[in-house]
Amino acid sequence: MKKISGHKKMSISEWFSVLAQYSEENNIDRDVYGNGKFLNEFESEMAKKFGMDKALFMPSGVMAQLMAIRIWSERKKNNRFSCHSTCHLTRHENNAYQELHGLSAVIYGKEHKVVSLSDIQTIGESISSVVIELPMRHLGGDLPEFEELRAISDYCRSKGIALHLDGARIFECIPFYQRPLSEIVALFDSAFLSFYKGIGSTSGSMLFGDTDFIDNAKIWLRRHGGNLFELFPLAVSAKYFFQKNECYFHEYFEKTKEFAEVISEFKSIHMIPSSPKTNMMHLLIPLSAAELAKKWDESPFGDLRMGNWGEVAPSVCRLEFVIGRASLEWSPQEFKEALNYLLK
Amino acid sequence: MKKISGHKKMSISEWFSVLAQYSEENNIDRDVYGNGKFLNEFESEMAKKFGMDKALFMPSGVMAQLMAIRIWSERKKNNRFSCHSTCHLTRHENNAYQELHGLSAVIYGKEHKVVSLSDIQTIGESISSVVIELPMRHLGGDLPEFEELRAISDYCRSKGIALHLDGARIFECIPFYQRPLSEIVALFDSAFLSFYKGIGSTSGSMLFGDTDFIDNAKIWLRRHGGNLFELFPLAVSAKYFFQKNECYFHEYFEKTKEFAEVISEFKSIHMIPSSPKTNMMHLLIPLSAAELAKKWDESPFGDLRMGNWGEVAPSVCRLEFVIGRASLEWSPQEFKEALNYLLK
Repeated sequence: MKKISGHKKMSISEWFSVLAQYSEENNIDRDVYGNGKFLNEFESEMAKKFGMDKALFMPSGVMAQLMAIRIWSERKKNNRFSCHSTCHLTRHENNAYQELHGLSAVIYGKEHKVVSLSDIQTIGESISSVVIELPMRHLGGDLPEFEELRAISDYCRSKGIALHLDGARIFECIPFYQRPLSEIVALFDSAFLSFYKGIGSTSGSMLFGDTDFIDNAKIWLRRHGGNLFELFPLAVSAKYFFQKNECYFHEYFEKTKEFAEVISEFKSIHMIPSSPKTNMMHLLIPLSAAELAKKWDESPFGDLRMGNWGEVAPSVCRLEFVIGRASLEWSPQEFKEALNYLLK
Repeated sequence: MKKISGHKKMSISEWFSVLAQYSEENNIDRDVYGNGKFLNEFESEMAKKFGMDKALFMPSGVMAQLMAIRIWSERKKNNRFSCHSTCHLTRHENNAYQELHGLSAVIYGKEHKVVSLSDIQTIGESISSVVIELPMRHLGGDLPEFEELRAISDYCRSKGIALHLDGARIFECIPFYQRPLSEIVALFDSAFLSFYKGIGSTSGSMLFGDTDFIDNAKIWLRRHGGNLFELFPLAVSAKYFFQKNECYFHEYFEKTKEFAEVISEFKSIHMIPSSPKTNMMHLLIPLSAAELAKKWDESPFGDLRMGNWGEVAPSVCRLEFVIGRASLEWSPQEFKEALNYLLK
């Protein structure tokens, strides 16, 4: 069945099979506690791609970002970091930054606005680091202009504040910025990438920084319990799907713009952001959660499900629409018919 | 080539293939952030086997034990826990208990002795929990008598101290205690199991406790970054190898006793413990690390490597010998020839 949002998921058995073949063809070796030829070469390749000194693969982004802000806080001898109110660290991690790391979060900016230089300039407290998420998921994948980012980076450097990139979806930003990844990342002192967003792998993330930073991160990784006995089940998948899907991000963005054209014909759907910056958007759609569920269940147009962030007003749902491999199979005309069905 | 210690490792490609077939045959579903039919049923089965209310699968034992002592410390409103000086928490985790959890460790007992009731009675400070590792790896897999354990458990309960089982290798203890697993675990308030020791899987662990304890652990798991997007790559392997290898622990122990007989004929080898309690032992062997490496490299008797814990005296190495699937292929006579070769 055709699926409008995201990637088609392999079955578990297919996932194991594909990686069996891939590891045989590439003669992949086992790693032990973070050391192994395949694993370390993968880290080096990714570090090079990011233009950073070193990279460290680990099971999750939660631990990657926590150790990043902890390391900056120790280097700068300041327990305070600053982030947007929609930051993963303060929204989705049961306050681990505080409960585990004893850090304090200062919120910058406005909840529904992308980060600006003035947000950072007016933080008003001494901080060790600033976290910026690119794209901003809670804002439907919105992005600041590159020049704004550069100004923020210059400002932070002039003040001795470390700038950390929440780059879970950083590959999703390249088509809009039209710059090489390394030029975007160069504005930051550390960065993190997730492998199960646009890249389509399973759990797994990578942390990037200078050599000292990554040496330090290895100690924190142990403390978090993330320095696993073996990482190959996650790392082989990460590399396989990265190689397979890295080339699609421009195509996703082109398809997203086609879909945005279609959506703009439906006056009752509100797009966030108003024009797409990445292959993601949030939609306010005039249906209750129950109405939507029924429409989805009974759809004759394939699987129209999107992530439902719930009712933001009576009979208005906020949906997360991610244009991935599955979405590429839809023509604008087919997408229009699907929307007509949902709203009729 | 025959291998004297531990398990034969599958190639990565074989590992992926075997699990592809297993997941297809068992129609295994994907999990999301800890929720999934296969994953949760596996947890329930293991909880039942352990005689505990609930179980929680996670990527590593480091995080499992840290959250266990943190939860007990919060419940008992006391930041101090107590453990043996060879405990994983104080030896191998870069002081995460302190750096991440703000806990304080009080060491009980003597470094080269198994835990006794009097060790626990003489801790001399108020503590929230006591951690006991069964078997004690740094003591060559030595074990206290069951009655001693029961007395410790009774004492802790009478004092309101939580007793946590570092049961990374708990299945290895069953042949010596000759009791069902649940009877051993019943002495403890929480327990942890590793899947890559005797069970022979890859990274993965399980934490056991009462319902409140596990509900709490889920929050700490998130904070540690261990609540992965998907756990199936580790969990499918854990269940597969558990089913495959659970039946061998008695056979390992019988083989260990045969080997111990052989070793006792070599007066220059010192066994720790003096008679095996589990399928593990440490050996003091009168060879330098360099001599040993050369002997191993040139061995005509197959792979004689054991974990080398280094030189404990001039020309004396401490080896960790684990009797696993690979070891079962050796007769006592063959083992004797191998030792003769090493020592000649």
